[in-house]
Amino acid sequence: MTNSNKFNQPMGGNEMPRFGGPGTMFRLPSCELATAEAKQLDIGLVGIPLDIGASNRSGTRYGPRAVRNESVLVRPYGMYTKAAPFDSFQIADIGDVAINTFNLADSIKIIEAHYDRIVSDNIKPVTVGGDHTISLPILRALYKKHGTMALVHVDAHADINDSMFGEKECHGTIFRRAIEEGLVDPKKMIQIGQRATGYSSEDFQWAIDRGVRVVQAEECWLKSLTPLMEEVRRIIGETPTYLTFDIDGIDPAYAPGTGTPEPAGLTTPQALEVIRGLNGVDLIGSDLVEVSPPYDTSGNTALLAANLVFEMLCSFPGCIRR
Amino acid sequence: MTNSNKFNQPMGGNEMPRFGGPGTMFRLPSCELATAEAKQLDIGLVGIPLDIGASNRSGTRYGPRAVRNESVLVRPYGMYTKAAPFDSFQIADIGDVAINTFNLADSIKIIEAHYDRIVSDNIKPVTVGGDHTISLPILRALYKKHGTMALVHVDAHADINDSMFGEKECHGTIFRRAIEEGLVDPKKMIQIGQRATGYSSEDFQWAIDRGVRVVQAEECWLKSLTPLMEEVRRIIGETPTYLTFDIDGIDPAYAPGTGTPEPAGLTTPQALEVIRGLNGVDLIGSDLVEVSPPYDTSGNTALLAANLVFEMLCSFPGCIRR
Amino acid sequence: MTNSNKFNQPMGGNEMPRFGGPGTMFRLPSCELATAEAKQLDIGLVGIPLDIGASNRSGTRYGPRAVRNESVLVRPYGMYTKAAPFDSFQIADIGDVAINTFNLADSIKIIEAHYDRIVSDNIKPVTVGGDHTISLPILRALYKKHGTMALVHVDAHADINDSMFGEKECHGTIFRRAIEEGLVDPKKMIQIGQRATGYSSEDFQWAIDRGVRVVQAEECWLKSLTPLMEEVRRIIGETPTYLTFDIDGIDPAYAPGTGTPEPAGLTTPQALEVIRGLNGVDLIGSDLVEVSPPYDTSGNTALLAANLVFEMLCSFPGCIRR
Amino acid sequence: MTNSNKFNQPMGGNEMPRFGGPGTMFRLPSCELATAEAKQLDIGLVGIPLDIGASNRSGTRYGPRAVRNESVLVRPYGMYTKAAPFDSFQIADIGDVAINTFNLADSIKIIEAHYDRIVSDNIKPVTVGGDHTISLPILRALYKKHGTMALVHVDAHADINDSMFGEKECHGTIFRRAIEEGLVDPKKMIQIGQRATGYSSEDFQWAIDRGVRVVQAEECWLKSLTPLMEEVRRIIGETPTYLTFDIDGIDPAYAPGTGTPEPAGLTTPQALEVIRGLNGVDLIGSDLVEVSPPYDTSGNTALLAANLVFEMLCSFPGCIRR
Amino acid sequence: MTNSNKFNQPMGGNEMPRFGGPGTMFRLPSCELATAEAKQLDIGLVGIPLDIGASNRSGTRYGPRAVRNESVLVRPYGMYTKAAPFDSFQIADIGDVAINTFNLADSIKIIEAHYDRIVSDNIKPVTVGGDHTISLPILRALYKKHGTMALVHVDAHADINDSMFGEKECHGTIFRRAIEEGLVDPKKMIQIGQRATGYSSEDFQWAIDRGVRVVQAEECWLKSLTPLMEEVRRIIGETPTYLTFDIDGIDPAYAPGTGTPEPAGLTTPQALEVIRGLNGVDLIGSDLVEVSPPYDTSGNTALLAANLVFEMLCSFPGCIRR
Amino acid sequence: MTNSNKFNQPMGGNEMPRFGGPGTMFRLPSCELATAEAKQLDIGLVGIPLDIGASNRSGTRYGPRAVRNESVLVRPYGMYTKAAPFDSFQIADIGDVAINTFNLADSIKIIEAHYDRIVSDNIKPVTVGGDHTISLPILRALYKKHGTMALVHVDAHADINDSMFGEKECHGTIFRRAIEEGLVDPKKMIQIGQRATGYSSEDFQWAIDRGVRVVQAEECWLKSLTPLMEEVRRIIGETPTYLTFDIDGIDPAYAPGTGTPEPAGLTTPQALEVIRGLNGVDLIGSDLVEVSPPYDTSGNTALLAANLVFEMLCSFPGCIRR
Repeated sequence: MTNSNKFNQPMGGNEMPRFGGPGTMFRLPSCELATAEAKQLDIGLVGIPLDIGASNRSGTRYGPRAVRNESVLVRPYGMYTKAAPFDSFQIADIGDVAINTFNLADSIKIIEAHYDRIVSDNIKPVTVGGDHTISLPILRALYKKHGTMALVHVDAHADINDSMFGEKECHGTIFRRAIEEGLVDPKKMIQIGQRATGYSSEDFQWAIDRGVRVVQAEECWLKSLTPLMEEVRRIIGETPTYLTFDIDGIDPAYAPGTGTPEPAGLTTPQALEVIRGLNGVDLIGSDLVEVSPPYDTSGNTALLAANLVFEMLCSFPGCIRR
Repeated sequence: MTNSNKFNQPMGGNEMPRFGGPGTMFRLPSCELATAEAKQLDIGLVGIPLDIGASNRSGTRYGPRAVRNESVLVRPYGMYTKAAPFDSFQIADIGDVAINTFNLADSIKIIEAHYDRIVSDNIKPVTVGGDHTISLPILRALYKKHGTMALVHVDAHADINDSMFGEKECHGTIFRRAIEEGLVDPKKMIQIGQRATGYSSEDFQWAIDRGVRVVQAEECWLKSLTPLMEEVRRIIGETPTYLTFDIDGIDPAYAPGTGTPEPAGLTTPQALEVIRGLNGVDLIGSDLVEVSPPYDTSGNTALLAANLVFEMLCSFPGCIRR
Repeated sequence: MTNSNKFNQPMGGNEMPRFGGPGTMFRLPSCELATAEAKQLDIGLVGIPLDIGASNRSGTRYGPRAVRNESVLVRPYGMYTKAAPFDSFQIADIGDVAINTFNLADSIKIIEAHYDRIVSDNIKPVTVGGDHTISLPILRALYKKHGTMALVHVDAHADINDSMFGEKECHGTIFRRAIEEGLVDPKKMIQIGQRATGYSSEDFQWAIDRGVRVVQAEECWLKSLTPLMEEVRRIIGETPTYLTFDIDGIDPAYAPGTGTPEPAGLTTPQALEVIRGLNGVDLIGSDLVEVSPPYDTSGNTALLAANLVFEMLCSFPGCIRR
Repeated sequence: MTNSNKFNQPMGGNEMPRFGGPGTMFRLPSCELATAEAKQLDIGLVGIPLDIGASNRSGTRYGPRAVRNESVLVRPYGMYTKAAPFDSFQIADIGDVAINTFNLADSIKIIEAHYDRIVSDNIKPVTVGGDHTISLPILRALYKKHGTMALVHVDAHADINDSMFGEKECHGTIFRRAIEEGLVDPKKMIQIGQRATGYSSEDFQWAIDRGVRVVQAEECWLKSLTPLMEEVRRIIGETPTYLTFDIDGIDPAYAPGTGTPEPAGLTTPQALEVIRGLNGVDLIGSDLVEVSPPYDTSGNTALLAANLVFEMLCSFPGCIRR
Repeated sequence: MTNSNKFNQPMGGNEMPRFGGPGTMFRLPSCELATAEAKQLDIGLVGIPLDIGASNRSGTRYGPRAVRNESVLVRPYGMYTKAAPFDSFQIADIGDVAINTFNLADSIKIIEAHYDRIVSDNIKPVTVGGDHTISLPILRALYKKHGTMALVHVDAHADINDSMFGEKECHGTIFRRAIEEGLVDPKKMIQIGQRATGYSSEDFQWAIDRGVRVVQAEECWLKSLTPLMEEVRRIIGETPTYLTFDIDGIDPAYAPGTGTPEPAGLTTPQALEVIRGLNGVDLIGSDLVEVSPPYDTSGNTALLAANLVFEMLCSFPGCIRR
Repeated sequence: MTNSNKFNQPMGGNEMPRFGGPGTMFRLPSCELATAEAKQLDIGLVGIPLDIGASNRSGTRYGPRAVRNESVLVRPYGMYTKAAPFDSFQIADIGDVAINTFNLADSIKIIEAHYDRIVSDNIKPVTVGGDHTISLPILRALYKKHGTMALVHVDAHADINDSMFGEKECHGTIFRRAIEEGLVDPKKMIQIGQRATGYSSEDFQWAIDRGVRVVQAEECWLKSLTPLMEEVRRIIGETPTYLTFDIDGIDPAYAPGTGTPEPAGLTTPQALEVIRGLNGVDLIGSDLVEVSPPYDTSGNTALLAANLVFEMLCSFPGCIRR
């Protein structure tokens, strides 16, 4: 562990046993927004404990807590990628968004306002959900800074319904909204892992018609996704890019603890290939959503999520490899 | 099983193994509202799969399904009370309320409208929740028929906050609303089982100041509640009475599967004494709320809930004992 | 959702939240045998809550209930296959078979008699078990109509023991019986996924000697099974075919909730390839067996099973793709 | 641990950590029937892994294994009773009965034959089930030696149905059979803990009419059962007595892992009072049934069962107290 | 919530949903030892994630994390005691002790040194374990300040073995050491809840012989412990007193998640009576040990523990009641 | 089952239901060391119930018991390998090592002494852990007989830290010790499955620098490992070889019940290829470590482990294939 320590470091496994220490992400220091310290941050780890935008099993409200809990196992260096994010960026746990758990519409506004503050502190947000609804207000806030973005979207579902129960904003409609509002350029949007059952072919077609590259799970079976990620990087080019990763994009064998599991999804090696394949892209934020602890009986879904968040950090531009 | 069978009977354990058969409450026939059949019903068993009014652990959205699943063990006769509700009343499972899971305020309106229809079919509703928010719109609908009601309220919490997160209607505020709106006569309202921690003495006092009889859990320890129920019947007299039973009124040892468990609550014998003690009262409806299946690892909380619903049926006026 | 609705439709996710609604398979209408309505059915979904034919962990008696519960997540259209079974066939949940849970031999007779009635209503049965014993009486009933059938059998085990504990009919002997009785043509029988440990090479050889094509799991590793399914369709030709799918054919990583799990089985993509590969075959019935809910801590085995049942519906001859 | 060690001793907690050592009951030596060693035994601990006589949740087939597993925590001396059974009796684990898991009627015969051998070795059997069906063949074997016996029966259910699904012998009918066959003297039979729901008052009345003392759970609430046990000893007198203890006699809060749980049962202190209250009675055998490990998520039901078995040993006539 | 806020307050349920916010005990601020802030503290909440001193099931290493997680449900005011500890004392979460998880003897030294620092900051420690071994080094550190202390010890076990596996210091020997070293005055030591099985009568007698008041669980059954606590206060008088509460003192029905559960223990009302009954005593520290999260499937054991820790705060001398 | 039975045979599934019978590995006879019987053994199955050498989640102390419990499903013949180990070798369960659960250093000595005795009985040990620390004292004992050995090491981690918490011997340092002490020839050591996060590139490099062949998980993705095993056999040649298999080498989807799970590991087919690929090598012992039952909610990790142990038996030199 011979780094200069000019950056925040996760508490080490020899300083404090992994089952002890602070309840922050990766046992990093925590930091409040709008402080001098916050201004120094490159990346902020945020939790959004929201599940009232979910249409099936609930429980993602406990996602941020569970992912933080299991993140104690993650060490600071990627053995294969050779990436050392905590020697590359100033990173802190910047806490949870105080959503209004009784009012989804209000919560969406609260989240957007919260991310306005994150953006104004010049912090790149890496968020742990919460249900997928949270990506919409995050994108809205980021849009004010970055303009129309590219989007990489891993998920079992397309999340492009026009409405659900008459509501325009919930976890199944957000990317239709994001495209309609111009937050995301559909020609620079890639969806990976969609599968299983829907209402009609229309469920994916609306996006395809707008130029989205939809990579159904069936296209991924038994294949490395490294070639796909080359294509993705080509499509995206230099555009500021947001990564949104719904844990249900991964097969429920690997990630049982989620609210809308669908069989025959991505493997975890493929998930790593996707995230690692974004190295080189102008990543300006990311999220990991839909971990539902009550259905995660071994804690391993949250542990996987913590590892994916670590891999995201390794793919931000400027991450040292050595 | 030698009844006249003029009434619906639960499917018997010898007709179909208990682990088979229809997924209705007590394996009773199901019945749609506003049909000729519905007009014949005395009591309707309803599910409300709502959990977006809950402030802590979620999951009660799966409560009605779980209670129906475990109700297969309940047989039609009370061995101690000698009550035979299915030979006394025409009872059916009248299904679930199609709440809007993304909008609590809208769901509250949907529930009220649904119970308006139940009331207009002249059915006494016995409801399985769902979080406790549901009792408010039910009381609103019943009020239109019965006027100001008496209320027996078993719960670890008083649920009389003025607001939570600025919201006036959620699972922690409903009985303040019910009193303010005149749905319930606080002088004929009894709260049983309140305990543990709050924000200040005010948490219970608002109700006490309005005349509510609050029986904290500590008053119940190591005691039969049969004498209390005599007092309750005296307080209530002839007033039409609604029973609302939050499963967390019972100690989490007996009912672990709930969202806001508090230690040192009622025992199940006490819970039975309370419900059985309402025999003789003009019960016009009841509910059983806050069963959260993801936290009910053995299924026994749902099973207990199903038994409590059965005991409620036995306490409706007119139930034959033999 | 623009179908003519001349056929039964599953209750939609916008009509009723997925965690509510009737406890039937896919939230379809239920239908009793020998009614006018039953005569209209193309396919009937049946549950057989039997586990007394199982030699190891029990619990499959709760299989039908659990698969129905989790089937609420399945939507009516196959996003990859483009199949729309509920616009192609009249399908209903025709309930459970009232087996005698204390007597296996008697239960086998009860099941056969029940399927005689299903066959006489001209319904193609798609059955959820229950332990694998149930396939034998189903095949006996179907044989009376279709004569000797082809059989596709996915399973970790061959189920061709001569006897177990001296009993000739239980979950480990049924396909020896089916071949001996001429229900199944061993030359048109394919077994897929057999593996792990047995008593001797004889365990698989008896079937091979009679012409069965046995595809051990090892042959399937790291491969698409689409080519195998071409071979299967060639072997079967026009013969009326029954599909029996033991969930333990799939690796326990994907399907932990079963009674006799064996490591290193099929993946779920392979399972889908097998079922989808039967499109074009004259499928006259199918079953999905050995889901054991007490060992399915996340519910995801039952959810997978519900998806596999949906995929079976999509492979019946005449299913529209669009 | 200063005993003469002329008797078998459980492996001690300082010899081998409690989580290690042999998988026998209390980590005692095991012993085969009909050996010279077996002839020396006073008491034999037996497992019967049967669950095909159960009418609701299955899983008791894994009861003996689970109770043995958890019995590692039980130490050799009763701190309150001051009983030292392993210094009083020669006790061994005499293994499991090889029932026929596909045939209940056959299994009943196998069990009876097995206990004939136990009786002929002059061993008092203390049995861990398995579902309650097992008590019938045990009583039949014991009857051949002891004649008509007294019976103490702790249970949530009376188990005196005439038949279930047309079967005369299963876990709900056994004590009607035992009385009809004269194995048990109904006037010396005490049932404790019956409760909840049934089909009619007849469910308990048949026994009462024959002179059985039925102590419903309601009679036990909030009371010590020590006075009841004085009455029990008076009723029984000198008659050879069998104790059959269904774990569901105890409230599911204490014993969640069972197949037919009913709310509001005995507490564990009451359970201990019952077993301890049999000291002084001519106990000639006992059983502990209906532990279902798949529903025992913490293992504590099996652990409780192991403690109850230990308490049974302490109540056998001749157990030293010091 | 109208307090002056001169003291640290738990984050409120309306500021941040209970499922969000910092992972500290009661969502209080955290504080490092030996800072100016630490000098202001009256009480420090400490975690000791140790389980290598446990002789049976492990897992208590995750106790502090789990109790902190579940402490989010605890509100700042005792509804029955009317105690307001956060308006009475300056309290913070002072983090975990960095034990050496590979070396028990070394960990015991580390803990003592850590508590020397806590004592030198003049903080009263309220500790969450961890296995019971931790109480010994805590007592050693407190002894240096307070001299020989009174001890109230709730536990299923006496923990007065001379050695285990030849080791003198582990979770079963600590109170023999504490008495031998003069840390605790055995004549002012009360043990409550001991029960079940041991090796000989000596297991409790060594303590009794030295003047310890041992209140076996059997003495507590069906009784209020309030009278006992009067006796306890009389015995203790003015002596500085430490409270050590092993969660297994409580019956496993209420507290299943522990490593050495014993049936028929205290109820949670009794546990509250014991802790509340210490009001008036010169409490100088306390601990809550042996919560083992892997065996706490609903989380309710940790939740109970968090409530007990709150009740401890309410019993420290000077706690305002209003 | 037509073998000569000159060797111990597992109790058969038709002799005793799989859920009954002795709690030994594969239901084989047990055998004590240093007896005449022990001298006849070729292979001894040993349990080491140790978890105090584990740095994260504990629980492996219950590993041997759980693996024995689940081994009841394993039959005596490998259907694909055609190997019949119980007809090839005299094998018995030789019980557990009585480690000192309070003292890791002492336990390491106890284990070495125990294996000295196993070696002196001329038994090849096949061990079930327990945490990975156990491999070090086993290698020390085997070294005295075999000299410097080849090592095949499947694991998510390299376990070559110099120290942890200042301790030189624990589950993360053992293979550095083994190389330093000359127990293992690093040029004949192959590590397979290492992955995820570490502290620096040094974590793997120390081994590589000494000539160890390190096959990171990424090299294994989507590939058969059969070619790798050819290379392994070439590297090893005739050298006596020990196989140490940490269950966390396998992906947590397949093996959730372990203490330090890392995403994206080996599949179970690959695990089988590795073990089967050792056929032809001079295997002189093996172990299977790090199964942690409290995190193995379905029991399937232990079941997988039991199957891997069976496959190990099949790879010992001299195993008959037929």
